[in-house]
Amino acid sequence: MSGSSFGKLFRITTWGESHGPGIGVVIDGCPAGLALSADNIQAFLDRRRPGQSKYATKRNESDTVEILSGVFEGRTTGTPVSLLIRNQDQRSRDYGNIASVFRPGHADYPFTEKFGFRDYRGGGRSSGRETIGRVAAGAVASLLLKELGITVMAYTKAIGPIHIAAEDYKYNEIRENPLYMPDNAAAEQAGAYIAALMAEKDSCGGIIECIADGLPAGLGEPVFDKLDALLGQAILSVGAVKGVEIGDGFAAAGSTGSRNNDPFCAAEGRILKNSNHSGGTLGGLSDGSRLVLRVAVKPTPSIAQTQNTVNENGENTEINIHGRHDPVIVPRAVVVIESMTAVTLADLLLQNMASTMDHLKKVYQDR
Amino acid sequence: MSGSSFGKLFRITTWGESHGPGIGVVIDGCPAGLALSADNIQAFLDRRRPGQSKYATKRNESDTVEILSGVFEGRTTGTPVSLLIRNQDQRSRDYGNIASVFRPGHADYPFTEKFGFRDYRGGGRSSGRETIGRVAAGAVASLLLKELGITVMAYTKAIGPIHIAAEDYKYNEIRENPLYMPDNAAAEQAGAYIAALMAEKDSCGGIIECIADGLPAGLGEPVFDKLDALLGQAILSVGAVKGVEIGDGFAAAGSTGSRNNDPFCAAEGRILKNSNHSGGTLGGLSDGSRLVLRVAVKPTPSIAQTQNTVNENGENTEINIHGRHDPVIVPRAVVVIESMTAVTLADLLLQNMASTMDHLKKVYQDR
Amino acid sequence: MSGSSFGKLFRITTWGESHGPGIGVVIDGCPAGLALSADNIQAFLDRRRPGQSKYATKRNESDTVEILSGVFEGRTTGTPVSLLIRNQDQRSRDYGNIASVFRPGHADYPFTEKFGFRDYRGGGRSSGRETIGRVAAGAVASLLLKELGITVMAYTKAIGPIHIAAEDYKYNEIRENPLYMPDNAAAEQAGAYIAALMAEKDSCGGIIECIADGLPAGLGEPVFDKLDALLGQAILSVGAVKGVEIGDGFAAAGSTGSRNNDPFCAAEGRILKNSNHSGGTLGGLSDGSRLVLRVAVKPTPSIAQTQNTVNENGENTEINIHGRHDPVIVPRAVVVIESMTAVTLADLLLQNMASTMDHLKKVYQDR
Amino acid sequence: MSGSSFGKLFRITTWGESHGPGIGVVIDGCPAGLALSADNIQAFLDRRRPGQSKYATKRNESDTVEILSGVFEGRTTGTPVSLLIRNQDQRSRDYGNIASVFRPGHADYPFTEKFGFRDYRGGGRSSGRETIGRVAAGAVASLLLKELGITVMAYTKAIGPIHIAAEDYKYNEIRENPLYMPDNAAAEQAGAYIAALMAEKDSCGGIIECIADGLPAGLGEPVFDKLDALLGQAILSVGAVKGVEIGDGFAAAGSTGSRNNDPFCAAEGRILKNSNHSGGTLGGLSDGSRLVLRVAVKPTPSIAQTQNTVNENGENTEINIHGRHDPVIVPRAVVVIESMTAVTLADLLLQNMASTMDHLKKVYQDR
Repeated sequence: MSGSSFGKLFRITTWGESHGPGIGVVIDGCPAGLALSADNIQAFLDRRRPGQSKYATKRNESDTVEILSGVFEGRTTGTPVSLLIRNQDQRSRDYGNIASVFRPGHADYPFTEKFGFRDYRGGGRSSGRETIGRVAAGAVASLLLKELGITVMAYTKAIGPIHIAAEDYKYNEIRENPLYMPDNAAAEQAGAYIAALMAEKDSCGGIIECIADGLPAGLGEPVFDKLDALLGQAILSVGAVKGVEIGDGFAAAGSTGSRNNDPFCAAEGRILKNSNHSGGTLGGLSDGSRLVLRVAVKPTPSIAQTQNTVNENGENTEINIHGRHDPVIVPRAVVVIESMTAVTLADLLLQNMASTMDHLKKVYQDR
Repeated sequence: MSGSSFGKLFRITTWGESHGPGIGVVIDGCPAGLALSADNIQAFLDRRRPGQSKYATKRNESDTVEILSGVFEGRTTGTPVSLLIRNQDQRSRDYGNIASVFRPGHADYPFTEKFGFRDYRGGGRSSGRETIGRVAAGAVASLLLKELGITVMAYTKAIGPIHIAAEDYKYNEIRENPLYMPDNAAAEQAGAYIAALMAEKDSCGGIIECIADGLPAGLGEPVFDKLDALLGQAILSVGAVKGVEIGDGFAAAGSTGSRNNDPFCAAEGRILKNSNHSGGTLGGLSDGSRLVLRVAVKPTPSIAQTQNTVNENGENTEINIHGRHDPVIVPRAVVVIESMTAVTLADLLLQNMASTMDHLKKVYQDR
Repeated sequence: MSGSSFGKLFRITTWGESHGPGIGVVIDGCPAGLALSADNIQAFLDRRRPGQSKYATKRNESDTVEILSGVFEGRTTGTPVSLLIRNQDQRSRDYGNIASVFRPGHADYPFTEKFGFRDYRGGGRSSGRETIGRVAAGAVASLLLKELGITVMAYTKAIGPIHIAAEDYKYNEIRENPLYMPDNAAAEQAGAYIAALMAEKDSCGGIIECIADGLPAGLGEPVFDKLDALLGQAILSVGAVKGVEIGDGFAAAGSTGSRNNDPFCAAEGRILKNSNHSGGTLGGLSDGSRLVLRVAVKPTPSIAQTQNTVNENGENTEINIHGRHDPVIVPRAVVVIESMTAVTLADLLLQNMASTMDHLKKVYQDR
Repeated sequence: MSGSSFGKLFRITTWGESHGPGIGVVIDGCPAGLALSADNIQAFLDRRRPGQSKYATKRNESDTVEILSGVFEGRTTGTPVSLLIRNQDQRSRDYGNIASVFRPGHADYPFTEKFGFRDYRGGGRSSGRETIGRVAAGAVASLLLKELGITVMAYTKAIGPIHIAAEDYKYNEIRENPLYMPDNAAAEQAGAYIAALMAEKDSCGGIIECIADGLPAGLGEPVFDKLDALLGQAILSVGAVKGVEIGDGFAAAGSTGSRNNDPFCAAEGRILKNSNHSGGTLGGLSDGSRLVLRVAVKPTPSIAQTQNTVNENGENTEINIHGRHDPVIVPRAVVVIESMTAVTLADLLLQNMASTMDHLKKVYQDR
């Protein structure tokens, strides 16, 4: 077991359980000289903080970050940046009744099979709170990218059956509605849909889209560490994600070569593409166009309806899940997807530094 | 650049270009004592070999494997297994005319941007021939899995608009048609569809599905090396793949919690699920049910139509691609997807050995 | 930069600076089910804590550990174990005068060259306090080893010119003197030697020896992850270490094959060796005998004498180092060497789990 | 088992057994644009080739290298460089009589314990022929270093009791004698010493020293991937090596701070050191001075004297080793040590590319 690290050079290691003392991340390999403060990170954490809308759990957490290392006089030093977020509102009593029963749609059963027992309080390590470390790291990665002119942005494309078509996006409205949709009107519809499901003690899923602009061509490492591949790992490692696609994705499977190929064109001394069915990657490397990926998020498995299941003794039983749960995971996962994308890009930017002798000479020969 | 390795314990490193002397893979970490012969590997390679149907390139390659190390008296020794497949039919002259022009839908442009120049012969490292190393490794992984009662099988679920519904699968027909579809009738339709596109100098894509049976619950390493996440990397690292989904995948995004949750049930002393919307993973770990994943494959980018593009001097130009190309990548990619799935599972089985003190005691205390 | 992690399966990631908020380590990959409490770890930390003898810095730190994750109801859960030790007595003012001057024998100059600037307070990340994370991890590794019948023990073999011959070791006296020497009389001599140097504002070095008993034969992974190789990395990664040798080490270079070979002999159904010049490794794998390694530790570079050096502007200058420093690093490094050895062995035990199909069948086939 | 790779960015994976079809290495991560031909590599391989002097095995191998991938039109492409060296003179019959007996001083016993059985022909993977892959990779690393003004050179400092003091080195004589000693007169003495041992069917060991010049300050990654630490792993992973020291090494353990510290001094706008007890590393990073390391090599364990040992049934027996063996490993290991040093430095140069935001901006902002 050694799966709590991600990235080769910009490498993050997360730790922490839902109801333990806290959650955190160690970022090893952040280049020295990046301006970084707790405020920078807090702004990201606040976007996933619970208790902020009627569509989110009422668990009360300030999720305040403390920088424990790696920053001196406002800049990263090149040594590990350790970030700590204390848990505060741990009502473990909510979970006593499910300690020995496997919740459908949750990790309870396979965790018990794998490790012999499990920390049942709030899902332990498999809780959504695990993503705090990812978001804290994503904040740092995003700052790094920004210094190089690269921006990453995620938003909600669909909630249940309410989809927004790309041509209708109003990016400026994303932060104006609690569902982070690029269309306030659609968000209102989606809100009504969620409310109806809540009344039935049910939940729903949705689709998150993430875009990145300003990428140089050539990021990604053939063949297993392609940009697509590492994004795939990064995104599918987020709980509740069941699918990921890049560019036209599954729709490309039904297209033809003549329609799906993006012709190159030269304009103003740059090489561009006339379309972007590829979603910004060719041969596993960034192609200089906008990166576009979409993520399928399943409905919240914790629902208040009575469900059939099995207990640890292998006996059939029923379960009623209390506690505080989001009726839809999507809105709070938006910043998680954005963060994992940013971390992946930061790592590949660092890896790409060593891709040619020319790069090496640029750095070493004018010293 | 260090992206040609995959896996942590069952670790494969592939190398080779389309028109170089050969292609190969080093498998480091295969446990000692596995019966292995060149024939075992050849059987897999023959499934992706070119020239076998009218839907595949006419390039003539026997793709004969040589075992260079790691096997002694018919069994793996625990040291690296090095496999070599020589290229034979390298008609590099086919590629002279595209040496300085970027083919749409191909890796030419970002490779040149990344590395400063490129081996333009047949796509070099970004050629489909790169997958030979994956398939050779997949053969070994599959043998290992089989010894532990685990089977992996991939097939073509869709070619362009011709989809086969899961309830119509006839698994026994998969090897009976050149498209590896679990329905000979659908395969015939798909064949006609491909033929029509070929007449128009066009190409198509499709969807591959892969299933695995016999997995113990608990495979996968929280949180970044989840089974889903590593499958995501493995699959999206295959050229032409634009999306991957597990279980209900993108459909789950439109479902509700009450419909999407799979209730557990106890039967004959085992813990089962009444449905399998999850596709065999919960919390990123195998849940003891059948693993099900689907893969979107884009249309072959090499088409014989004239296309607009740009040359290395940044000038607009046209390109006519000759050479020998598959009108659809899907059928030959089936065994590649199966192989990458097998490699991922083998690696996670090895990693899972160290998950509990009980496992350690089982191995070390009866010595 | 990504050098703060060590180990492949039992993987530790340390972080923290001398004068930041704290120091810590994340242990990823500790098998589930290991009994673990803060007391277990504290016992190790207390062995390297400052202020405990006249040969150690007077810095006053309780070095109290907090377990932040990965332990539930007294046992490891299989998820990352995060450990935090707050810094308390950070007298940064001691370091103001050396902020812009490079201390001889210290990391100041290359850190500045590498990262562009440095956290000069107490050496920042290059301080001896960095080893706290190693020792906390070593405590956990040692517990794991103990469960499998393996013990690791380090001690001081030499201080400056005072060496103890192996035949004179009295292991029971190691904890009876503040220098951790297996001979109280030698320790008294060494104490006098140190006192004389302190009077001259000078410092000294020494040799640490570490042994491990109970190892199964076969630990280590050919060829680059040999037991010897990973111990070499582990030990030489400790600050102030300038050499490492295994078994007869450098003396073997002057021996002959007939004297240096250890004949095997069978006794009571076991395969033993008549001698142990090899120090417990053959071909890079443990050979079932006692593991023996020795470590050269340089004299403390911080001495109170005036020294010539250069400042950040590249001007010649003098430096007078104040602050609180150990006159000899060796005694407090003993537990660090023991810890790094334990971590290395724990990792290789986990890796070795997957070495044969027999091991796999033992774990997977009786489920 | 996954120990056949070394390096993080400049990553080498070796494979092959003494009596299998061949030996090889895959170099993943070599930057694109490095001029490379088979001749460059052959020159290195010829330095370790057997049969070239009376002090080396008579096994007849041309050790001819074939470049299988990663080079196009005389330059590296950025994709894996795969190198193959076929075995030719495999007289396996020499080893039949030791198939079931454990040779003292060899890996036979722990390999059998680890893997359940072993390829006994010539030691299989634990043979000295395994180092061919290291040397081939070292040739490539050395070319890369040379482009950046860095040179690495190893030589024999001692054979048995014949040591050469540093002040007596005549570097120009190293290639003039078959023992690669920097003093032809000492080499003659050493030759006589070896001849005397051969007459007694015995063998001897020695010490190799390796230096590197032209390194920038700051190479190495704190804290576990220090330059010292990775050199330690690299060097101790070579068979027959029992110790490694940097700078004054074990002698530093007996020194004092005032003598062991190297004062900095400014001269001609550069920061230098007045002495080099440190051997070119401070705090685990290169300090801009000459890197100096020494390696203890044990006597050849294969000696023609009758030795006591045990067979695979655990019975006491005697063994007489025939076959073709070097009476001293040192001379042929010189280029191996040089190669492992070069590979380590190349990898750290690549890693260091991403150490600061300034480096990133230098590469990405003038695109």
